[in-house]
Parts: sequence; C-alpha cells; structure tokens
Amino acid sequence: MIERRIIAILTDFSLRDNYIGVMKGVILSINPRAIIVDLAHGVPKFNIRKGAFLLLSAYKYFPKNTIFLCVIDPGVGTGREGILLKTKNYYFIGPNNGLFTFVAQEDGIVQIIKLRNEKFFVKPASKTFHGRDIFAPVSAYLSLGFKPEELGRVMSLNELHRIEIMEPVIHHDYLEGEIIYVDDFGNCVTNIPGSALSSYKKDSVFWVLREDKRYVVRLSETYGSAEKGEGIILVGSHGFVEIAVNQGSAAQRYGLKEGARIRIELG
Amino acid sequence: MIERRIIAILTDFSLRDNYIGVMKGVILSINPRAIIVDLAHGVPKFNIRKGAFLLLSAYKYFPKNTIFLCVIDPGVGTGREGILLKTKNYYFIGPNNGLFTFVAQEDGIVQIIKLRNEKFFVKPASKTFHGRDIFAPVSAYLSLGFKPEELGRVMSLNELHRIEIMEPVIHHDYLEGEIIYVDDFGNCVTNIPGSALSSYKKDSVFWVLREDKRYVVRLSETYGSAEKGEGIILVGSHGFVEIAVNQGSAAQRYGLKEGARIRIELG
Amino acid sequence: MIERRIIAILTDFSLRDNYIGVMKGVILSINPRAIIVDLAHGVPKFNIRKGAFLLLSAYKYFPKNTIFLCVIDPGVGTGREGILLKTKNYYFIGPNNGLFTFVAQEDGIVQIIKLRNEKFFVKPASKTFHGRDIFAPVSAYLSLGFKPEELGRVMSLNELHRIEIMEPVIHHDYLEGEIIYVDDFGNCVTNIPGSALSSYKKDSVFWVLREDKRYVVRLSETYGSAEKGEGIILVGSHGFVEIAVNQGSAAQRYGLKEGARIRIELG
Repeated sequence: MIERRIIAILTDFSLRDNYIGVMKGVILSINPRAIIVDLAHGVPKFNIRKGAFLLLSAYKYFPKNTIFLCVIDPGVGTGREGILLKTKNYYFIGPNNGLFTFVAQEDGIVQIIKLRNEKFFVKPASKTFHGRDIFAPVSAYLSLGFKPEELGRVMSLNELHRIEIMEPVIHHDYLEGEIIYVDDFGNCVTNIPGSALSSYKKDSVFWVLREDKRYVVRLSETYGSAEKGEGIILVGSHGFVEIAVNQGSAAQRYGLKEGARIRIELG
Repeated sequence: MIERRIIAILTDFSLRDNYIGVMKGVILSINPRAIIVDLAHGVPKFNIRKGAFLLLSAYKYFPKNTIFLCVIDPGVGTGREGILLKTKNYYFIGPNNGLFTFVAQEDGIVQIIKLRNEKFFVKPASKTFHGRDIFAPVSAYLSLGFKPEELGRVMSLNELHRIEIMEPVIHHDYLEGEIIYVDDFGNCVTNIPGSALSSYKKDSVFWVLREDKRYVVRLSETYGSAEKGEGIILVGSHGFVEIAVNQGSAAQRYGLKEGARIRIELG
Repeated sequence: MIERRIIAILTDFSLRDNYIGVMKGVILSINPRAIIVDLAHGVPKFNIRKGAFLLLSAYKYFPKNTIFLCVIDPGVGTGREGILLKTKNYYFIGPNNGLFTFVAQEDGIVQIIKLRNEKFFVKPASKTFHGRDIFAPVSAYLSLGFKPEELGRVMSLNELHRIEIMEPVIHHDYLEGEIIYVDDFGNCVTNIPGSALSSYKKDSVFWVLREDKRYVVRLSETYGSAEKGEGIILVGSHGFVEIAVNQGSAAQRYGLKEGARIRIELG
C-alpha cells in the first residue's frame, strides 16, 4: 500500500522558519519511508477559507489514500479539536475549524476521529504547535498502517466544523459570485463553477461589475490567446470562472481582492 | 535505472500557491516511486531567458537521465508545442519556447518529441495548466520507463525554438557583456565566461562601466577575501564573470539590473 | 541504517535561485537513495546566530544519525575550515564559523573532521560555493556509509568555533534577555528558558520593558486563549519565553526586533 505512505502538507507557516522542516523530522522519526510532499505553505496567516479552497482544488490530483496534514490553526491549544477525517478516498488531519469543509462535501465523509490519544503525540505536547506535536506524528503513524480508530476516538459526523459558503448566483442574464482566491500571477478565481460559461460563445464580451466600477473582459479558453495585457474571463485550472490578464495581474489592473463580490454580465 | 526516477522541477510559479504541490500529486499518482526535486520556482513570471540560464547552470550537477520538468509558459494553450527534448545525458519536458536553448546547445540534442498523445495526459486536459495536465504526467510516464517515442511524435531537430543570445565581447583590452542573472544575494552574473579573467592577476583593479557611471572592483577569488562591503569581480559558481560585494548586494550598490550591458576595463 | 540516509539542509540561500536545487542534484548523483529534507532556507543572509538558533530548536526532532548540511557561510573560500561535527546523536556538516555552537553544547561533541580530502569534492571545487562543491558531496558520501575519519582529518575538539551567548538573567523579581528570533507570524522568541515562567500563575500580568517603553502582556498557555489582538507572554514551542499577540504580530505591535534587550517584570 505505497500510496498510504504519501503525506502532503498544507500550512500557513511560510517556508521562512524551521516549522515545516521540524514537522518533517517528526514524521521521518516515526516512518522514515514516508513520502512527504509540500502542498502549499503560502496561505495567508489564519486564512482558513483560503486554505480550504487550496485543499479543494488540489486533493483529487493526489493518489488515493494520500494523507493531507493541514495546519492553519489560529485556535491551537484552545477548545477546538484536532481530528482525522477519512473521506471516501483520502485522509485529512488537522484542526476541526472548517479547513475540511469543501473536501468533506465533495469527497464524502466516512469517519471522523478526535485526536486525543497521547500515545501518538510528541511528548510533552506543546500547546502552541500541534502541527509538530500532534498532527505530524499522527499522520506518520497512519502512514505506517495504524487504523484511524486506533489513533483516537470516533466522533459524530455532524460534529465536523464547516465554514459558510456564499452561494454564487447563476442567472441566465448574469452571474454573481465572490473572488475566493488571487494567485501569485494575479489571476482572480471566483466561486462560480466553470460550467456557468459553457453556453457562451468564444470571444463573447462581458462586463465585470464591482461596486460602481465596470471592466470589459473577453471570453477566452487560454491566457495566451489574448493580446498581451488584455483582460479575459475563462474557466481556470481550478475549475472555476476566473478573471485574468494575459501576462499581467488582473488583481492589480482591476483592484480585485479576495472577498470582493462581483457581477458578470454579457456586454 | 534509479536515476531515471529523478524528476527536477523548474517553474515561475513561486511556492505561494498549490500549483507545484498539485503537479507532484499528479506525478506520484502515476509513479509513486518517483524522486521529485525542486530545482527553482522563483524565476520571475514569464522570464524564459532567466529560466533558461538557471537550467543551464544547474542541470549538469544532476545524475544522468534526470528528467527536468520545466514550466515557464506564457503561451500555455496557444500554438506553441509541448515537447520532450532528449539531450545526450538528460531529458527536458516543457513548452517549446526557448527555455531549452542553452542546455540543448551545451549537451547536444538527440531527439525531440511533440507531446500530443492524450493517453498520457490528465483528462480533461485544461488549456491553462499544461504543467499539471501534460508535462507532469508525461514526466511521470517517462520515469516509469516509457520510451520518448511512445509519448508523442518525433519532430525535426531544427524545430527547437531558440532564444537569441547576445554574444559577449572578449577583447584583450576590455570585456563587454550583459547582466543575465541577479541572485538573491544581489550578486550580478554576466554572460562573460569565467575564462576571460584567467590572464589577470589576483587583486587587479577593474572599472565596471555602465552608461555614464563607472565603479571600481577588485579581482578576487572569493567573496570573503575582500573587505566587508568591498566591490569585487570574480568567476562565480555558475562559471561566469560576476560582480559582487562582500556581504552586500552589488545590484543595489551599483544599480545593476538584469539586461544591463556593462563594459569591464583594467583600471 | 535508514536514518543515516536523511540529509536535512539549512541555508540562507532562500528558495529563489537554483542553489538548493543544485546541491540536491549533487547529493542524488552520489547517493540516489538519500532522503533530502529542507530544514529552512529563509535565514537572513549571513546571520550565523539565527541559523544556530534554528538548528538548535529543530535538530532533536529528527531521527538519530540525521546529517545536517548547513550553509550560512559569509567566509566561504577564506581561511575558515569546512567541518564535519559528530555529536552524540547527529552529524553536522558546514563551515566552522559558530553555526554549530548551540547543538554542540546541547548534544555533546564526539568528533570533528576537517574537510580537506578533495577526493570527496565536486571537481574543480569553486571558491565561492562550498555548499555545492564540498558540503553537499561530503554529506552524500557520509550518507552512503563512509566513516567521518575517511572524509577528512580529525581535529581537536576545542577548535570548534563558537559564537558568544549573552546569558539571560533570571531574578526572582524580573527576567532579562534578548529577542533572538522573530518568526514569520511576528512572535518574538527570547533566550530566556521557558522554565523561568513556571512559578507564575496563569493570567498573571507582566510588563515588558524595552528602552523607555513598556507593554502589558498576560501569561497564557496558548495563543488562542487570549482575545484576538491581545498581547501575551508564553512558553513557545521552541522551549523559550516568547512575546506574542493572538492572531497578530508582536514584532510590529511592540516594535521588537532581533537583538533587542528586554526586561520582564510582574505587573
């Protein structure tokens, strides 16, 4: 079962400090054969929602049974539980604070375990770095073949903490949604499913409206098929409607930030 | 053939998003035994020339048969081909946009394959993220032992896209060249081969001329043998003439940027 | 002896350039079975003291016999020796410039080897990048099972270069120390051992004094048990007294920088 050996790590730690290195040391101390992958560490501090989105758009590209070790954890050491979530195809380990909302919804919950068995913790477990002291070692034991129920106590499926999702509006005259992710290129990913654009013809012109401003963008299949610097709307690689600028930053050009509500109309 | 298992990744994605993590997931889904190495991800967006240089100064330190998965790809989804380039000792996979100019020249081209066999793609392949949907899976299949010609169609060797190289001038009175890379320390790497300095004595004083400014630097073998803050000229670890400041940034001190043309004269 | 295969890398190179990728290429060329882990690469350039602290707070979480390959090396190519330090449980390879001061003190020195055997270098070894040409290949040979004394010449234990440590003051009325590390969250780690807080009650109020300013902080066990934005003092995950702000940056709030001397008094 080689896939169970893969542990993918998502955090808001950045790579500046030694925190991620230390978590890997803990994992390799328990299972030197674990295959560790950095999923992303540049999530803005404490941004659970953004972490949840990055997890959603990534997890299904990993082999089944991959263990996702996720630490965006403003409540570390307080009442929030550490959990192991088993979905139909994957394992997720981290704080029960909403980070797993989207993957649970999409892949289906099979089992949730509260991580309270100190036998599987780094001792003494700190109250400030559960990534190192609880989530990393539990991930490693799981990768060794321990069963989820050996690692803690089964909890009710409806105890999974979920973050609220602002539903996009798909009207036949317009689309409404929210910028949920601005990537490092400045591409602005919305929460509107890509299918909402399927009935429009290539090169259709749209208005993007935000507050009292409006911008023209052209429906494109790729970044590069637009003019350099041209504004486009497309189905991005995450599977959602995306506002972009060929070889430029749509976030800068249009002043779009995460959380901004936009409306998209045929021009 | 363990070396064929090594896949080294070079991109301009930065590590902020989950794009590189996702590519690794795709690779491990196909070949869980692949050994994945991050070569560099901080190449400035769309800077093919700089990516080509980073590849040149790195590839030969990897084991023979290493697969280099390279994605600096402003034209993703447009007419530019995705290719697999086999050189004498290595494999390079990525867009045919000039990224492989220098390594092809130095290591010698053996074979070029157009990547058009959808059997080896992530399906449905997006038009915006070939790194994930084409280049990562093809790299993984190659690492499993597939032959290049199984992965696509052979193309003519002269179809390799090349970027133009501004030739340095090595005159016995002066050297002329271009800053092709400023590293994170602020060291300024030129395109003048290190051998151009071999006839000069240690501690020789040079002028570095740029537009109407001139700076004094001293020929040194190491950074540390200069005074702290002293300007030096040396053969850098990339093998090229480099302008540096001991424990400081030559880029900041002298206002040097990539692309700047400089002339170097004995003082 | 699988643990001997683990090589953890600490540098001040950042991940922007290809330097770390190249070092990994060198290691895999010699030992394709090496397990390479990034410990941290965001140490500020040339900051040996901070690198030494990051090493101290990380090494013991790695499996015994892990090889730490450490390159913060302002004196590269000058008189400073490259060394292999064997402590009771680990191996450390890098420049003899103080980087190993704290780990040597805590884990105990067993043997020190001067790295002068060119047989184990990348040839020709540059004078500017010993990380690639000396420390990486020697780490790889060590991971293959070579004995330390085969890799160079034994040197006297008292030749280990040490950096000076400003001792913290633990008085029963106050504590005095220095900010030795500000992490990416803005948490300010002091050099005062966590045990200094053990006699105080939870929620005790302290003054943090620096120059002519004073700030109120509350003793807490976790970040999250404070109000959002509240200043706290706690035993951080590094094991030292730490000044923090729940979901905020103590460094910004209080203007604390590394090197700042502070005094802590019961309020």
